[in-house]
Amino acid sequence: MDMETSSQLVKPVPAVNTREVFCRAFPKHVTLIEVGPRDGFQFEEKIVLTALKLEIIMRLVEAGFKHIQVASFVHPGKVPQMADAEILLSALSGIPGIAFSALVLNMAGVERAISSKLAHIEVSISASNRHSLNNTGMSADAALKMGLKMVALSKEHGMHVRAGIQCAFGSGYDEVISEDRIAAMAKDLVTAGADMLCLADTTGMATPLTVHQVLCSVRPVAGNLPIIMHLHDTRGLGLANVMAAMSCGVSHFDTALAGMGGCPFIQGAAGNIATEDTLYLLSSLHIETGLNLSKIAACSRDLEVFFGKCFPGKLYRHCD
Amino acid sequence: MDMETSSQLVKPVPAVNTREVFCRAFPKHVTLIEVGPRDGFQFEEKIVLTALKLEIIMRLVEAGFKHIQVASFVHPGKVPQMADAEILLSALSGIPGIAFSALVLNMAGVERAISSKLAHIEVSISASNRHSLNNTGMSADAALKMGLKMVALSKEHGMHVRAGIQCAFGSGYDEVISEDRIAAMAKDLVTAGADMLCLADTTGMATPLTVHQVLCSVRPVAGNLPIIMHLHDTRGLGLANVMAAMSCGVSHFDTALAGMGGCPFIQGAAGNIATEDTLYLLSSLHIETGLNLSKIAACSRDLEVFFGKCFPGKLYRHCD
Repeated sequence: MDMETSSQLVKPVPAVNTREVFCRAFPKHVTLIEVGPRDGFQFEEKIVLTALKLEIIMRLVEAGFKHIQVASFVHPGKVPQMADAEILLSALSGIPGIAFSALVLNMAGVERAISSKLAHIEVSISASNRHSLNNTGMSADAALKMGLKMVALSKEHGMHVRAGIQCAFGSGYDEVISEDRIAAMAKDLVTAGADMLCLADTTGMATPLTVHQVLCSVRPVAGNLPIIMHLHDTRGLGLANVMAAMSCGVSHFDTALAGMGGCPFIQGAAGNIATEDTLYLLSSLHIETGLNLSKIAACSRDLEVFFGKCFPGKLYRHCD
Repeated sequence: MDMETSSQLVKPVPAVNTREVFCRAFPKHVTLIEVGPRDGFQFEEKIVLTALKLEIIMRLVEAGFKHIQVASFVHPGKVPQMADAEILLSALSGIPGIAFSALVLNMAGVERAISSKLAHIEVSISASNRHSLNNTGMSADAALKMGLKMVALSKEHGMHVRAGIQCAFGSGYDEVISEDRIAAMAKDLVTAGADMLCLADTTGMATPLTVHQVLCSVRPVAGNLPIIMHLHDTRGLGLANVMAAMSCGVSHFDTALAGMGGCPFIQGAAGNIATEDTLYLLSSLHIETGLNLSKIAACSRDLEVFFGKCFPGKLYRHCD
């Protein structure tokens, strides 16, 4: 067979769009919820004055965020950085179209949220018995019962409720937290009226496989409610976990400016996934976020100067 | 229809093994090539004496490595840390079953490798015209021609040749380096006799999508030859890129102890992906490596003390 004949026999191969093939597994649009002003600041000793918080939050709004977690109703003695929760939320109440949310960990927090006429609340409980006992003095079962009451009471007062499960990917203690347990908790929280679910990798232990496994269990009970992933980058797997979650259909992530934050109760549970690095990943996958990277990174650089320390995020120093 | 009838109509759903489903996309075994003693050390000013290099290398062998890049035949005036290449390789020549490799960037390097009776050589050239001109004074085309001669000469002298392409995922300069260009270079290197290909993200610009795209182009020309990914974690995407590469069939990665290293010619091209963090990811995916994490991390901690600085790896301080 000569070359000409051979070439005639070969059917033309249609050009494969490798970008389209690869990106098909991921959502077209992702919502980032900035948690730096809450989860980032609460980890720092140097107090951020309310005026500076407001300035940063307004710059985040300017950068395109529609969801910002700005405070938590916790005891000011335990977390002094959050002592101005009421004042801050009141100052932000006149700004339309943005969900400024606050975290609550107990009924006293819900009561404060009600008094503050909070519109967006995050109720959060731990799936780990040991973690729950250490932080709240309650067993995980007791915490869940309380959590369901918190959700119900918040709904009664017209709040949009996000229900968070801490330690959803492990606690670091010598205990097994099965994905069935997480799914059962999620189901109860949905039944109690939650509008969104949040799965928190409080201890930075999630891996792409466990993200996949927990989401396989939780998604069926979540129905159409959004699942938010709250990930830390303790072991360098933060963005690999984002990819695993997106390939399971998740399109909502908590992120913090410059990768600030952590868990004051668990040593080594370093930094939330950095807003800038996550945004870079999403942008590289042609996923829309509506966010302006350089405006966000400018906030991070200003906070680096304010706190006088480097944060673990990799990109924020390099985007103008 | 009563419950019993309904239940009889429902076919039993086979239990899905979510781990099996998720891990199916990845190789069962991955080979890590430790490049810390070359790519890590060369970035440091403090000279590592040959005796300490030998101690670390022997501990890496003890930890299970079969491939370690230990030196480069570059000008000792430019990279003083590599001045003992011949002495080091000679000292290691009596150890059977381990591939101790060295990097060469020009014909003078190949000549030195021949004189040293090196068995495993890495020939490396840049796909970026600007990067090549800046570092070698040669255009990318001229560098490729030289690279092909280097591969051929190394093969003539019985060496196992790994052919590396620098800047395979971008250079940071204002130029486009298409995946077709990388595939064409790879094809030429394979034709010249390369035994393995290495795609280097010299500037830390790779993203999961570009990893996928470049591999889609290069794999067909590589045939059965292994493709090694040499990744940096400049923007937090290091391990996400490992996952993307594995899902394209790659099972060989360069890693460096504690995420040491970088590129002395490109600012901000921080750290190779850390051996310990990569190992943690692979282990979480139930991928075999034959490596002992705690022995590796112990080397990294000793190097941290020796160099008196923290490295970017996240896990090495925490695994005993």
